[in-house]
Amino acid sequence: MPTDSSAPDVGELTPPNRTLMGPGPSDVHPRVLRAMSTPLVGHLDPSFVEIMDEVQELLRYTFRTDNQWTIPVSGTGSASMEAAIGNLVEPGDTMLVPTNGYFGGRMASMARRAGGEVVEVAAPWGKPLDPAAVSDALAEHDPDVFGFVHAETSTGVVQPNVPELTTAAHDHDTLVIADTVTSLGGVELRVDEWDIDVAYSGPQKCLSCPPGASPLTLSDQAMEKVLSREEPPRSWYLDLSLLEGYWGEERAYHHTAPITNVYAIREALRLVAEEGIENRWARHRHLAGALKAGMEGMGLEMNAPEAYWLPSLNAVRVPDGVDDSEVCEVLLEKYDLEIATGLGDLAGEIFRIGCMGHSARPENVVLVVAALGDALESLGADVDPDGGVAACRDVL
Amino acid sequence: MPTDSSAPDVGELTPPNRTLMGPGPSDVHPRVLRAMSTPLVGHLDPSFVEIMDEVQELLRYTFRTDNQWTIPVSGTGSASMEAAIGNLVEPGDTMLVPTNGYFGGRMASMARRAGGEVVEVAAPWGKPLDPAAVSDALAEHDPDVFGFVHAETSTGVVQPNVPELTTAAHDHDTLVIADTVTSLGGVELRVDEWDIDVAYSGPQKCLSCPPGASPLTLSDQAMEKVLSREEPPRSWYLDLSLLEGYWGEERAYHHTAPITNVYAIREALRLVAEEGIENRWARHRHLAGALKAGMEGMGLEMNAPEAYWLPSLNAVRVPDGVDDSEVCEVLLEKYDLEIATGLGDLAGEIFRIGCMGHSARPENVVLVVAALGDALESLGADVDPDGGVAACRDVL
Repeated sequence: MPTDSSAPDVGELTPPNRTLMGPGPSDVHPRVLRAMSTPLVGHLDPSFVEIMDEVQELLRYTFRTDNQWTIPVSGTGSASMEAAIGNLVEPGDTMLVPTNGYFGGRMASMARRAGGEVVEVAAPWGKPLDPAAVSDALAEHDPDVFGFVHAETSTGVVQPNVPELTTAAHDHDTLVIADTVTSLGGVELRVDEWDIDVAYSGPQKCLSCPPGASPLTLSDQAMEKVLSREEPPRSWYLDLSLLEGYWGEERAYHHTAPITNVYAIREALRLVAEEGIENRWARHRHLAGALKAGMEGMGLEMNAPEAYWLPSLNAVRVPDGVDDSEVCEVLLEKYDLEIATGLGDLAGEIFRIGCMGHSARPENVVLVVAALGDALESLGADVDPDGGVAACRDVL
Repeated sequence: MPTDSSAPDVGELTPPNRTLMGPGPSDVHPRVLRAMSTPLVGHLDPSFVEIMDEVQELLRYTFRTDNQWTIPVSGTGSASMEAAIGNLVEPGDTMLVPTNGYFGGRMASMARRAGGEVVEVAAPWGKPLDPAAVSDALAEHDPDVFGFVHAETSTGVVQPNVPELTTAAHDHDTLVIADTVTSLGGVELRVDEWDIDVAYSGPQKCLSCPPGASPLTLSDQAMEKVLSREEPPRSWYLDLSLLEGYWGEERAYHHTAPITNVYAIREALRLVAEEGIENRWARHRHLAGALKAGMEGMGLEMNAPEAYWLPSLNAVRVPDGVDDSEVCEVLLEKYDLEIATGLGDLAGEIFRIGCMGHSARPENVVLVVAALGDALESLGADVDPDGGVAACRDVL
């Protein structure tokens, strides 16, 4: 009982027990949750420095890179995104960004705030970028930086042909930033082989780790641009030249690292290493394939064709005659199951169903197919729930 | 065992079991650690919106404010610091910052990056600001914003006379930002009564919560300046006008909140409310008083006189003839006990001994006095360890 009658009397933390099949966060593995209840050591403790090294090594493995500059940024995915853009884009630089989803728009906003000029390569929401259009835009604008979204969480589209994009960019001496928030650890991604200069991600998608420390990797060439800037980046917190002092050789104090989040991502990345990264990509593809079969089996339509379907985020067309928000509410209330509605240009048109990390398990895939079928039918949609479950089980 | 022979083989997380009596993080309460192993709900889940409301209410209680704009920023203390400065300082604005410790310098760097001009009010490291000097600087520079450090973690100094500073600033229509990183929840702080416009803090000091979600509060007047800026702040991630959409009425997606860190700070703040904020200030004062008595009892000297001694961070003069880093290493190795050395102008001159939150307990205070006495004696310093422990016990 509060000893101070003016103190708020807030009860024990008892959130509902959800199954998270939305665009993230995904269900966290019990081992990661347990790691988060580990008592803290100091952020300059010699034992923590070892943990930092291990996290960097595991991140390199997961990104498929040898980049020295591979760290978890102290914030959620948008912080690693702004660290990438805010450090690489200098005032007066030009950044080429895509229009084919929500996150291209965010890239543009961050680039402008960094003092950059923004130019665009167009593609509709729900389509990937066309390499020819990217080449044309590079030739026309000669940008310093080109950003693209490898896995668009707002549309369920994976960008194919990444090496074509990076080759075209490098032909113009343009550095490439890839948004890999919804691909890292779940969908094939090869930073070095594909010649991506900078990639950022979030931990709460295919890594199934609570948000708070977010992966970022930079090639030596990208880091060289950062370290030779004429004026410092506009954020002190995200200034990579200062973070170098902490994560590099010197281990000097910059800011207090989010120790527990570093514990968590270490355990989440250990799970990636134990499974093997290619096995993990295959598991996501297999289980999301069963989910997709279930959707199609009940008579629903995927928004993306097979050629650029993103296994970790399944965009499913909302059938005629039902309200998408109402469907999500029924799922949450009856099944404690989270999926999400569309946003931006696809608001009202798609459901977004994640299949990420620890959420990508047969039991969850069957649940989401059965529960969505039930919810849609109860709200009057013309679907075949049993056909959906049968088709899903066939693949599983 | 890794199924992929190229995968790093990293073992279980087994950090040492430290007692944290440094400048932060402090020891985390077991209830807070347990809260962090709670499975996640989505960041837009109706149940999470309730949790957000509770955290805001608890933060207001702890800051002693009715400010609507009271939130945990998604990052460590430096993120809430940059959110405060980066939003309040517009290009062309002038910010007055102090020189009496490490964090005034960081304020200056952040203000410059925000596009502001920086002017200084001088005081040596280890002294508080003199209200007359602040008044003179306000008259001379007519700044838009004045920042001061309420509790200087680098020097162990609390700023007395806060209302004198805020009154002087408001006479010049200058908004006041207070760094309360090492005071919130441990040392008397009254945001509304003292007329502080903006205060930021960190969770890992007197709140004994792992870093990752950091308290920030703004008055309506300060928020009005933020919302009427001519150009947006230079960070998208920390843009309070966008965060308003998430933490305000609308509950619109901005970025994925660090859900687990919000769970943690909720539990840490519940502990504050259960204890009662004034009881908590008294406990810190009492236990740090015992620590101080122990230091003086063994023949050591405090760096700050009683008038501006900061109970949550005790700066103790390093006695002649010992190496401060060596002392800290002995404590870490023999006693699993963390304290810190000095930095900046006080490097080599002081030990920094925290007495914060869950670390502020009689068992820890006795331990730090006994262990430091032992370490110093073993390294040849002229101290009286038994006299220290006796003096400490007398106060306890």
